[in-house]
Amino acid sequence: MEKHFLTLTRLGIDTHQEPVVYMREDCHVCRSEGFNAQGRVQICAGDRSIIATLDIVKGDLLSHQKAGLSEAAWLLLKAAEGEKATFRHAPAVDSMSYVRGKLYGKAFTERGANDIIRDISAGRYSDIQLSAYVTACAASNLSLDETIHITRAMVDVGRHIKWGPGRIIVDKHCVGGLPGNRTTPIVVAIVAANGLTMPKTSSRAITSPAGTADTMETLTEVNLDFDRMRDVVDQHGGCLAWGGSVSLSPSDDIIIRVERALDLDSEGQLVASVISKKVAAGSTHVLIDIPVGPTAKVRSAELAERLAMQLTSTGAALGLTVRTMLTDGSQPVGVGIGPALEARDLLAVLQNQPESSQELRRRALALAAVLLEMGEACEVGGGMALAVRTLASGLAWQKFQAICDAQGGMKIPPVAAHTRTLLAPRRGVVAMLNNRVISRLASLAGAPNAPAAGISMHVRLGDVVDLGQPLMTLHAEAIGELEYALDFYHSHPQILHIEEEVA
Amino acid sequence: MEKHFLTLTRLGIDTHQEPVVYMREDCHVCRSEGFNAQGRVQICAGDRSIIATLDIVKGDLLSHQKAGLSEAAWLLLKAAEGEKATFRHAPAVDSMSYVRGKLYGKAFTERGANDIIRDISAGRYSDIQLSAYVTACAASNLSLDETIHITRAMVDVGRHIKWGPGRIIVDKHCVGGLPGNRTTPIVVAIVAANGLTMPKTSSRAITSPAGTADTMETLTEVNLDFDRMRDVVDQHGGCLAWGGSVSLSPSDDIIIRVERALDLDSEGQLVASVISKKVAAGSTHVLIDIPVGPTAKVRSAELAERLAMQLTSTGAALGLTVRTMLTDGSQPVGVGIGPALEARDLLAVLQNQPESSQELRRRALALAAVLLEMGEACEVGGGMALAVRTLASGLAWQKFQAICDAQGGMKIPPVAAHTRTLLAPRRGVVAMLNNRVISRLASLAGAPNAPAAGISMHVRLGDVVDLGQPLMTLHAEAIGELEYALDFYHSHPQILHIEEEVA
Repeated sequence: MEKHFLTLTRLGIDTHQEPVVYMREDCHVCRSEGFNAQGRVQICAGDRSIIATLDIVKGDLLSHQKAGLSEAAWLLLKAAEGEKATFRHAPAVDSMSYVRGKLYGKAFTERGANDIIRDISAGRYSDIQLSAYVTACAASNLSLDETIHITRAMVDVGRHIKWGPGRIIVDKHCVGGLPGNRTTPIVVAIVAANGLTMPKTSSRAITSPAGTADTMETLTEVNLDFDRMRDVVDQHGGCLAWGGSVSLSPSDDIIIRVERALDLDSEGQLVASVISKKVAAGSTHVLIDIPVGPTAKVRSAELAERLAMQLTSTGAALGLTVRTMLTDGSQPVGVGIGPALEARDLLAVLQNQPESSQELRRRALALAAVLLEMGEACEVGGGMALAVRTLASGLAWQKFQAICDAQGGMKIPPVAAHTRTLLAPRRGVVAMLNNRVISRLASLAGAPNAPAAGISMHVRLGDVVDLGQPLMTLHAEAIGELEYALDFYHSHPQILHIEEEVA
Repeated sequence: MEKHFLTLTRLGIDTHQEPVVYMREDCHVCRSEGFNAQGRVQICAGDRSIIATLDIVKGDLLSHQKAGLSEAAWLLLKAAEGEKATFRHAPAVDSMSYVRGKLYGKAFTERGANDIIRDISAGRYSDIQLSAYVTACAASNLSLDETIHITRAMVDVGRHIKWGPGRIIVDKHCVGGLPGNRTTPIVVAIVAANGLTMPKTSSRAITSPAGTADTMETLTEVNLDFDRMRDVVDQHGGCLAWGGSVSLSPSDDIIIRVERALDLDSEGQLVASVISKKVAAGSTHVLIDIPVGPTAKVRSAELAERLAMQLTSTGAALGLTVRTMLTDGSQPVGVGIGPALEARDLLAVLQNQPESSQELRRRALALAAVLLEMGEACEVGGGMALAVRTLASGLAWQKFQAICDAQGGMKIPPVAAHTRTLLAPRRGVVAMLNNRVISRLASLAGAPNAPAAGISMHVRLGDVVDLGQPLMTLHAEAIGELEYALDFYHSHPQILHIEEEVA
């Protein structure tokens, strides 16, 4: 086939993860290949090749001899300025036929799941196609078999850490939906201080105001490469890294971005995401926290039990011992909601500060207790006493500092430039706190992208408040975001309910 | 709220329908508002406002005082070069909660359907959100009520043509899936020649190599504005316009683009698309052609009857008399597949050329006959004789020319620069023709974007062919597309099956 060269140039346009190529509509390649705006184009440079979405340029932004690349396309292709490239219509993404089939009731086969996940991780799905996949998974509950296929496929396209045969590797995870439930760093510190191995990799927030990786990033470096992470774990028994930076589940990061844009989590995809990361990280024993409450991600004990079964069974199919813990999901856990605010909470617990969140402390201890028993650091039944001792003695705080130092040094979490405290409009009892609306409010204030942004909660369920008493404080890095969050607060009275006391 | 101005500039980047805004990451607006790549931003200029997706620029493509707009954003905002604009986080698209609800089994309410369609037609959905909506509709068969809600909402956001009370307005539609089934222009000519009013608006191809609008565009102007279309119809009783250019169903054009990218049609969305356009066009009596065949869009008589019921009932709910005709969908209809090639076929029928496609002629007559009866241009039972007379006498051809002249003059369809004839690899009987693979082949050759591109079929089912006898000819405007189509042909033997004759 006749070759059509253009010279590549980096335009410096950040289109997030979707690779985009820019070409003049009247360049010889567009004319001879018959390319159209938003078409999918295969770009080959040397022995490298990617698929990108085409944006057509009409003006003088580009010369006829050049093709511009977005940042994602530039990095994915590993292009060099001035390098020659050829262009052709991207072959149809055959695995989309499995996505279409799923919509018409055909379950994902092992082959289908493999092909879809391989194409996604290779960047072959456009955003429109990714959205269809995510939506198809949400539209029907994936069966256990389908979930296992997807999970295994996600493990296969990522890296797999081996810690040595026969070694117990513990891990924990929370399915999310509960603001301020930042137990993980405390649990890692307690467990690792007792000699267990807990190489924790966390994701960033999907639809919440902070993920553990977002919070830890305000305290230390979390973008550890593979070798660095292994060093930290070998030295200290634990780490607190971002999963994406070690490429444990590259397809998951792509899928999560689209789920976030749609504000959509599907059960099967959630199970696949959690278990694939645990298997890839080489875990053997995993404890999963499932908060249950009317405004948590999981709304009823029935749904929680189904999810627990899926997690346990999918884990077992992939050789993992999974235990689940159903916890109270009726209100936020710590005081802070947002990366830096949650970091302050967990420091207070680790440092045994008297004003620290007792709820956060209690939950972290309960989870650590089970993991100490699963990892055989103590007798069955002895986990709680050991966990309490480890925290109270300062050993957990020492371990946490050692891990942060090894990851690149401890940082002080940032403080927001703009705050506003919201006051009780009347006297009464705090009868309801809506986790979803509170999370959304913290997101609008800028969390997690603005790490100092979020909310401090000044009340808990059942508290009696006076007229004018502080309910919560909004924190924002930009004044626009503060004002936007305030607008939202005032237009969403269902965020919390103060019941007037009957005399 | 503090105002953040930037000056607008047209970058000349065609991102198709999704509005995109480009800003420097270090400009004061991005910094103060906390914008991120791929975030959704509301842009206000004067009293106009749009929502656009943000692409962040890192280099010197833009100055700090400027925000660049893509072509879609520029036109939607009706911006002027150098105009000042303000920027804020786009409010959450509340109607997405109905899309999410649908995924979890909650049917679309009237309110939900209205909100979704209003937001889509106003350009408030990102491509990722549009894809979720289209996928959600495909994932579950919309109920009749849901389909009616969506249809009515689509009518409400578009323009509605009124032709005068009590007047009969006939129309026809084909649900598609059958290559070369280009009966509409012939039917319009026959029906209008008999004094009926048939203001035909057609869509462009969704996933097929040509829509009626694509074909008619090779013969005359189809981008008629509203007043122009009314003039043509008042004068000649009929027109053959592109529906999108008269804004009859603006939401449909947006939805169709995403369906095309996903290669996905949902039944409910199909019904809503068809009926909303007919109601908006002021039709009173509509005939719908439903081809049925193993490789047509509708694969079984059972599915066809369900679709027919949905079309008839949805039409009735919106005050429309709908009749359906189930037709043979086992092979392409005319000789040509692709805009210009189909145009040549219909000209041959209208001109009573002896070598014209008899199958195309017979189908157009059958449809015209029913419409003549529905529109009371003749007694029940007299439609076929009248249709045949109108075509044979040349009256239909005269009417067709008059309509094309009124729309802007007749053009000669273009001829492809590159052709390749494919030959029978052995002697035998043509036992199977795969409509889907044939359509895909024509698309890869460039149809409908390259109007001269497509396929001429030289054989029909049951034909006996010799070794080396021509089966079909590929037509392409670009050599790259011809070669790409050839690759596809040679790698897809299921496109047609030649059964060896048993002696």
